[in-house]
Amino acid sequence: MSDTNLTDAFSQAYPNAQKVYVANESGSVRVPMREITLSGGEPSLRVYDTSGPRGIAVTDGLPALRRSWILDRGDVVASERSHVPKGAGTRIPEGLRRGALRGSGNVTQLHYARKGIITPEMEFIALREGVPAELVLAEVAARRAIIPSNINHPESEPMIIGRAFHVKVNANIGNSAVTSSIDEEVDKLRWSVLWGADTVMDLSTGKDIYDTREWILRNSPVPIGTVPMYEALEKAGGVPEDMTWAMFRDTLIEQAEQGVDYFTIHAGVLLPFIHLTEKRVTGIVSRGGSIIAKWCLAHHKENFMFTHFEEICEIMKAYDIAFSLGDGLRPGSIADANDVAQFAELKTQGDLNRIAWKHDVQVMNEGPGHVPMHLIKENMEKQLEWCEEAPFYTLGPLTTDIAPGYDHITSAIGAAMIGWFGTAMLCYVTPKEHLGLPNRDDVKAGLIAYKIAAHAADLAKGHPRAQLRDDALSRARFEFRWEDQFNLALDPVTARSYHDETLPAAGAKLAHFCSMCGPKFCSMKLSKEIRDAAATRDKGMDEMSQKFREEGSELYLKG
Amino acid sequence: MSDTNLTDAFSQAYPNAQKVYVANESGSVRVPMREITLSGGEPSLRVYDTSGPRGIAVTDGLPALRRSWILDRGDVVASERSHVPKGAGTRIPEGLRRGALRGSGNVTQLHYARKGIITPEMEFIALREGVPAELVLAEVAARRAIIPSNINHPESEPMIIGRAFHVKVNANIGNSAVTSSIDEEVDKLRWSVLWGADTVMDLSTGKDIYDTREWILRNSPVPIGTVPMYEALEKAGGVPEDMTWAMFRDTLIEQAEQGVDYFTIHAGVLLPFIHLTEKRVTGIVSRGGSIIAKWCLAHHKENFMFTHFEEICEIMKAYDIAFSLGDGLRPGSIADANDVAQFAELKTQGDLNRIAWKHDVQVMNEGPGHVPMHLIKENMEKQLEWCEEAPFYTLGPLTTDIAPGYDHITSAIGAAMIGWFGTAMLCYVTPKEHLGLPNRDDVKAGLIAYKIAAHAADLAKGHPRAQLRDDALSRARFEFRWEDQFNLALDPVTARSYHDETLPAAGAKLAHFCSMCGPKFCSMKLSKEIRDAAATRDKGMDEMSQKFREEGSELYLKG
Repeated sequence: MSDTNLTDAFSQAYPNAQKVYVANESGSVRVPMREITLSGGEPSLRVYDTSGPRGIAVTDGLPALRRSWILDRGDVVASERSHVPKGAGTRIPEGLRRGALRGSGNVTQLHYARKGIITPEMEFIALREGVPAELVLAEVAARRAIIPSNINHPESEPMIIGRAFHVKVNANIGNSAVTSSIDEEVDKLRWSVLWGADTVMDLSTGKDIYDTREWILRNSPVPIGTVPMYEALEKAGGVPEDMTWAMFRDTLIEQAEQGVDYFTIHAGVLLPFIHLTEKRVTGIVSRGGSIIAKWCLAHHKENFMFTHFEEICEIMKAYDIAFSLGDGLRPGSIADANDVAQFAELKTQGDLNRIAWKHDVQVMNEGPGHVPMHLIKENMEKQLEWCEEAPFYTLGPLTTDIAPGYDHITSAIGAAMIGWFGTAMLCYVTPKEHLGLPNRDDVKAGLIAYKIAAHAADLAKGHPRAQLRDDALSRARFEFRWEDQFNLALDPVTARSYHDETLPAAGAKLAHFCSMCGPKFCSMKLSKEIRDAAATRDKGMDEMSQKFREEGSELYLKG
Repeated sequence: MSDTNLTDAFSQAYPNAQKVYVANESGSVRVPMREITLSGGEPSLRVYDTSGPRGIAVTDGLPALRRSWILDRGDVVASERSHVPKGAGTRIPEGLRRGALRGSGNVTQLHYARKGIITPEMEFIALREGVPAELVLAEVAARRAIIPSNINHPESEPMIIGRAFHVKVNANIGNSAVTSSIDEEVDKLRWSVLWGADTVMDLSTGKDIYDTREWILRNSPVPIGTVPMYEALEKAGGVPEDMTWAMFRDTLIEQAEQGVDYFTIHAGVLLPFIHLTEKRVTGIVSRGGSIIAKWCLAHHKENFMFTHFEEICEIMKAYDIAFSLGDGLRPGSIADANDVAQFAELKTQGDLNRIAWKHDVQVMNEGPGHVPMHLIKENMEKQLEWCEEAPFYTLGPLTTDIAPGYDHITSAIGAAMIGWFGTAMLCYVTPKEHLGLPNRDDVKAGLIAYKIAAHAADLAKGHPRAQLRDDALSRARFEFRWEDQFNLALDPVTARSYHDETLPAAGAKLAHFCSMCGPKFCSMKLSKEIRDAAATRDKGMDEMSQKFREEGSELYLKG
């Protein structure tokens, strides 16, 4: 996709919207928002926007928004990259090549927060979320929120993952041994952030894994997460038992220097837990979980990520990489939900959180998976208790197993619910889940379903800004401002095209009815007539209404 | 669509499945099920099937399955049809023409249930749901469940709506003044039941309304609901204030003689409630609600459906038509959810239920609408209390307003939740909601989303049969029986086509991996290897596992 196309992609996806920047008083921080222009005297509406700077060549990479903030703190040193895999880097264009930074001490946002320092990242987030910077500081300091922000990924626009803020959505991309290329993955990245991905995980496992990640990082306005074990396994020739701690450690440093913002680390899959999965219907369904389980059994030893956890923390804090403690034993079917294996790992995650916090390393916990609705709340409650309110990051959960091809829907149900209960970030599921790798259409379908789930959760949690958009859209609907209704939608072009299938004429966009009911049966039109009539209603009606209210309307009040 | 195509439609939609019939001991009742044949030594799985007899010409209509049951009760008389609208009937082929029956007394299933009579309809339902006939009898007698079954619609296969049973799904079809024809509507009916619609509402409002309904009823294996007011309004030339009680009553009788199984009656929209909607963001969004509100205001009189409610009951009980008490004041936006207008009407519905029950007329209550997640439960609780546990029948609810084009998803979230809480039937929402009339693809998309919601609710409610299908599919997934996994899916063909996009070769259907992770990273494959290894594991491992369990595994148990 050419860069011109990428610029166009924004205006094509969001007609009548433009990128605006909201600055703090000093002008040192400028936060991108999408401003939707409305008609009928309605003020324009600004919404959270993850699409990043557009129109920049992917061979140049995005501007380093955070570089001066990072350097100004005076706690980093520059260095050459170490541990670059043999033969890697050949497919990285000159314009994307960067050196590496390393903290001379602890450079995590948690470290600053515990010292009471409001960083530019926190200021940025406060403007972006519409909350005081002090709240951002307090939530990070209390370890209830994280700001994934590797000092080697200065291109990222700061965002926060915590239940006091907007529920976030992660999109997974990445090639596998079977399919897809670097170009496709960068394209999926830009496509994902266009449709609202708050973070992106690069789960590539095939060849060119290093170069692919470099392209992605240099072009990503959102934090990037990875599962370093996938690359460690490549280095071990694909044989789990041949992995070593040294291989894994080198991989962490290599990715840290590239700029990965959070690592999924399956340190909670312990040797004694593995047998707890034997009676399951679907065993271990996490890739990382099954790889490390195989390693543990082959060596008859405890998980090396567990035994070396403090060394991992030392690496993380020198770059400000956040832990995403993987749920390697998450249930892969309704039958296996909330079982002893799953909860044994979750409790261990809590123990690991406390170790990470000792090092001021930011941490979130990954959660299920497949869970029927009545067992969802227990997951959230146990996570809050055992993991001491660290942010929870769940995959779905899928609320039934019977709809492969539609698992963006089976899981959006569970995702919305667990988001309401307190989950801070939802990992999307696409229609291709269980069946194949998602293409562009699948990525978009997954993201829209998850933006719905996240927004529904924001409404239910009572996030102060959430309902503004619902109300603006509903007013547009009631007032037959069709164009505004389309433009306020999560996917304006689809909304418009569905309308136009039955009433394509331009005049229909001004019509006070639609094809659903036709002019005679339009409830909105009739309802407006009723309201107009009420404006001039006679005294008798007033009295009747008054009488009703006096006599018993309180019977019908809520509560 | 030709009839050959219709026969093929079933086998095309459900490969490796066939229609089987489960009979009671005497053989008097034969219930259709869809039997899915599996491989790998798995027993075949029988699932609930709504698709009806296939391969019968739409100009002949379905066999009159219930006719002998109805006649054998000896409480009906035959008659010519009355009140047929002028000019109607010209488009009804000879093969679909039927006379009318009328009860000589009360012929409702509730009437029989209260006498302790287990009807063939109840026996049929017991086999279909996998529960004792006594439970069916008891739930109907307690008014917690209804069996919509007009004696003039003998073609319908009995089904039950109540929270002790499978959650049901309704699909709306029907032409409007703007678009669509009789053929299209009959096609949508057959398409709807193929994809699992448990009832279908014909919401036609255009011309040929009588003839369209006749085609639909004669070809429908599921109960048909209507909103009689739409036809009454047509008779009044589209002017709400020109409607009269006589017009409305004649319409009820006309449709009763055709065989409509349940009527949406907006009798709870009372004159004093109308002003309660004035401050709303979206006023009155129910078509029926806005029409009767306009009538009330124009005449300064109470709703004629309320004032004539007992006369309506007299008609309903002579044909066994169930009330679906319409929620004319349901909220049309998040901002209007659970407001005083909505709950005033719901409380009135409860009063009307008691009047209907006095006549032994079956009744369910319609519910919202647009409701954020945190306000959903209150709807169910108030309905259970005020309406004394009559079945609840909700439209969604949609959990946000911001995603026109995807409202099958915004509402599937709310539908799954309220289904779990106790709603007996979910009215589907298609992707075209708020934008246009659904086409075949939209009908299917809406139904799949709602079958997911209903099934997720069945799982959460603990319906004894629900998890069998999830478990069978998950076992197939874990054992790489790809064909079984597709065939057990709600939409086998889509599941297969998604898989084949990346791995089309026939051999890939036998592969022990898929394109998502490739062979090296396949968690299911690794997990099976772990399990195999465990089968021959050494004593040391046993001891370690034993030690773990003794020392502290109880820490990780649920609860």
